[in-house]
Amino acid sequence: MYQASYLKHFTEEVFLAIGCSPEEAKLASTVLVSADLRGVDSHGIARLAGYVRLYDHGRLNPKPEVKVVYETPSTAVVDGDRGLGLVVAPKAMEIAMEKAEKVGSGWVSVRNSNHFGIAGYHAMLALEKDMIGWTMTNAAPLVTPTFSLDKLLGTNPIAVAVPALTEPAFVADFASTAVAYGKFEILQRKGLPAPLGWAQDAEGNATTDSNAVKSGGGLLPLGSDREHGSHKGYGLGAIVDIFSGVLSGANFGPWVPPFATAGFMTAQQGVGLGTGHFLGAMRVDGFRPADDFKQDMDKWIKAFRGARAVDGQKVLIPGDPERESEADRSVNGIHLLEPVVLSLDELAKRFGIPFEINL
Amino acid sequence: MYQASYLKHFTEEVFLAIGCSPEEAKLASTVLVSADLRGVDSHGIARLAGYVRLYDHGRLNPKPEVKVVYETPSTAVVDGDRGLGLVVAPKAMEIAMEKAEKVGSGWVSVRNSNHFGIAGYHAMLALEKDMIGWTMTNAAPLVTPTFSLDKLLGTNPIAVAVPALTEPAFVADFASTAVAYGKFEILQRKGLPAPLGWAQDAEGNATTDSNAVKSGGGLLPLGSDREHGSHKGYGLGAIVDIFSGVLSGANFGPWVPPFATAGFMTAQQGVGLGTGHFLGAMRVDGFRPADDFKQDMDKWIKAFRGARAVDGQKVLIPGDPERESEADRSVNGIHLLEPVVLSLDELAKRFGIPFEINL
Repeated sequence: MYQASYLKHFTEEVFLAIGCSPEEAKLASTVLVSADLRGVDSHGIARLAGYVRLYDHGRLNPKPEVKVVYETPSTAVVDGDRGLGLVVAPKAMEIAMEKAEKVGSGWVSVRNSNHFGIAGYHAMLALEKDMIGWTMTNAAPLVTPTFSLDKLLGTNPIAVAVPALTEPAFVADFASTAVAYGKFEILQRKGLPAPLGWAQDAEGNATTDSNAVKSGGGLLPLGSDREHGSHKGYGLGAIVDIFSGVLSGANFGPWVPPFATAGFMTAQQGVGLGTGHFLGAMRVDGFRPADDFKQDMDKWIKAFRGARAVDGQKVLIPGDPERESEADRSVNGIHLLEPVVLSLDELAKRFGIPFEINL
Repeated sequence: MYQASYLKHFTEEVFLAIGCSPEEAKLASTVLVSADLRGVDSHGIARLAGYVRLYDHGRLNPKPEVKVVYETPSTAVVDGDRGLGLVVAPKAMEIAMEKAEKVGSGWVSVRNSNHFGIAGYHAMLALEKDMIGWTMTNAAPLVTPTFSLDKLLGTNPIAVAVPALTEPAFVADFASTAVAYGKFEILQRKGLPAPLGWAQDAEGNATTDSNAVKSGGGLLPLGSDREHGSHKGYGLGAIVDIFSGVLSGANFGPWVPPFATAGFMTAQQGVGLGTGHFLGAMRVDGFRPADDFKQDMDKWIKAFRGARAVDGQKVLIPGDPERESEADRSVNGIHLLEPVVLSLDELAKRFGIPFEINL
C-alpha cells in the first residue's frame, strides 16, 4: 500500500524532471492521484509512464502557455499549447468559473490539449463556489457507433457535479460506452471472456472475445445494441466529441490522437489541434437563491437514497462509490498492481527519484 | 392519411376552443404536429386529447403569463404559469437565444409548465441563428434507477441541435431510458412480450412482460442493467431532472406530475411547481468563426455517414430518421391509428369543429 501523499510527491518529482514548473507539477500530481484516491485506477498513477512517453515523443509541452484565443462574456476557446490536460483542464475550468461569476455561466471549449485524467475532478472544482460543474473530453477512437464497422468515437466521458447543502455533492462521471476499456484489460490478463453487449467483432457481430477491440472490433456505445438504445449512447458520445473537438478546433471523431500507444500521430496530421475538452460552470444562484436550491438537492438525494432496493443492494447517488473509496484510501492507502509499481520504479531510476517498491 | 396542414388547423381550433390566444394556438399546433411529421407519433396529435384533459382538470392555464422570475446575463428561471409546454418551451428558448445573442450563451430553467411535445423541436429553434440548441425536460416517474424498486425518474429526454454548412443539421433527441414507454403500448396492443433489458418486474428482476411497468415494475435506464451501464443512464436521467426540476423550482424525481392519466396531482401537492424544462443556446461564433465551425461539422458528418457499415445497414447521423420522415410525410401525409382518429373525432364533436374521419 502507498499513502496518497507519497504517490503525489513522487508524481510531482517526475513532472518536475520533464520540465514542468513547480506549480504545475503540483497541480498535475494532485489531479492524477485523485483518480487513485477515488477508485478510478485506470486514470491515475498507472498512466504516469504514459504521460512521460507523450513527452518523449514530442507531443507534450511541459511549459505550456495556456491562453484564451476567442471569447464572449460567457464562452471561450482555450488553446492548451500541447500541455498536460491535467493542468490545462483546471485552468480552463477557472476561466469558466470567472465567467460564471460575472454573467451567471461560463463555457470553455479547449483545443491542443492531452489526456486530462478523471473528468469528475474538474467538474468538482465548481462545487466550492456553489456552481454546477460540467466536464467532457473526446478521446482516441475505440467505439463503433450503431451499425458502424469503423471506430469513430472515444469513450468520451461526461461529468456533472452539483452541490447540496448537508448531503455530499451529486457527482456523475461516466463514459458514453457500455464499459470503459480498462474492463477488457482486466479480463485479458485473466484470460476471461467478456459479457455480450460490451464489444463487437470485426464483422459487427456481438462477441464475448475480450480481445475483440484489438482485432478489428470496437467498444459498443452505452445501450449496447440498437434494440437497447445504442444509438442513444452513440448520440451522447457524438455530442461530447462535437463540444470538445469541433467547437474548439481540436481533432474530432476518428482523428483524435491516441493517449500514448504505438503509432503516434502528431496533432498536425489530424483535422485540428490535439485533444479537445469542454468545461462549464453555472452559478446556482443564477437560477435560484443558492440555499433554496441546495435544500432541494438534499431532498432529491434523500428521496433517491431512501428508495426501496433490490435484495442485497442499495440505490446509490452518483458519486457515492468514488467518495467512499476516497474516504477509505485517504486513511488506508492505495494498492497498486505490480506492473504499475514496476513502471514507477523505471521512472524513478531514469530520473534519479527515490522510490520504494511496495507490493 | 392526413395532410399536416389539416391536422395543424384542427389542433389550432381545439386550442382556441379551450381559450388559448390565436398566436399561442398556432404555435402549439405547429409544435405538436411537428412530432407527427418527424415520425415521433407518440408525442404528436395522439396527445391532443390529453392536453384537453389537463385543461379539464384545471392543470392547464390557456392564457399563461410566461415570465422571467430570476436572471443573470446568461441564465434565467422562467415561470410557465401552468401554460402549455408547447408554448412555454419555445418562449423560454427565445429568452435563451436573446441572452446568447448578447453574452455568447443563454440557459433557461423552466418551472410550472406542462408536457412540451418533442424536445428536438425546441433545440432546433437555435439552428437558424447559428446557435447550438439544448433541450431537456423531466417527466412523471416511470423509471427505476439501478437497483431501485421505486420509480423515481421520468424518461427525461435530451435534445441537442448543431448546425452544419451544406449537410443537414445534427439533431440528437433521445430519452435517457432503454426505450420509450410507447414501445410497450405497441406490444401490449399486440399481446407480445418485450425484449429483456427494457423493463423490470415488481421484484426488480429482468422481465419480458410488456405490462410490467403497470404491475409494479419499472422502465430501465439506458444501459438496462448494472453490467451494461444502467447507472450511466440513471446518471443521465438524474442530470436532466436536476437541471429541469431542482434548478427551476419545479417538481422533481418522484414528485413530477403525470401528463394526463388517472390520479391527477396538482402542482401544489408536490415539492415545486408543475413540470420542469431546461433550454440552452450557445452562439457557435462564441467559440470559433461560424463558417469554420460549420465546415468542420460537415467534415464530421461526412466521416460518420461514410463509415463502413454492418451488412444491410448504414451509419446514421442523429436526426437523419426524423428528417427523412418529415420529407416523406410533408408530401405523402400522416397516417393516424384508429384510436387517435376517434379521439380527435370526439374533440371535434365536443367543440363543434369540422373533422373528417380518414382511416
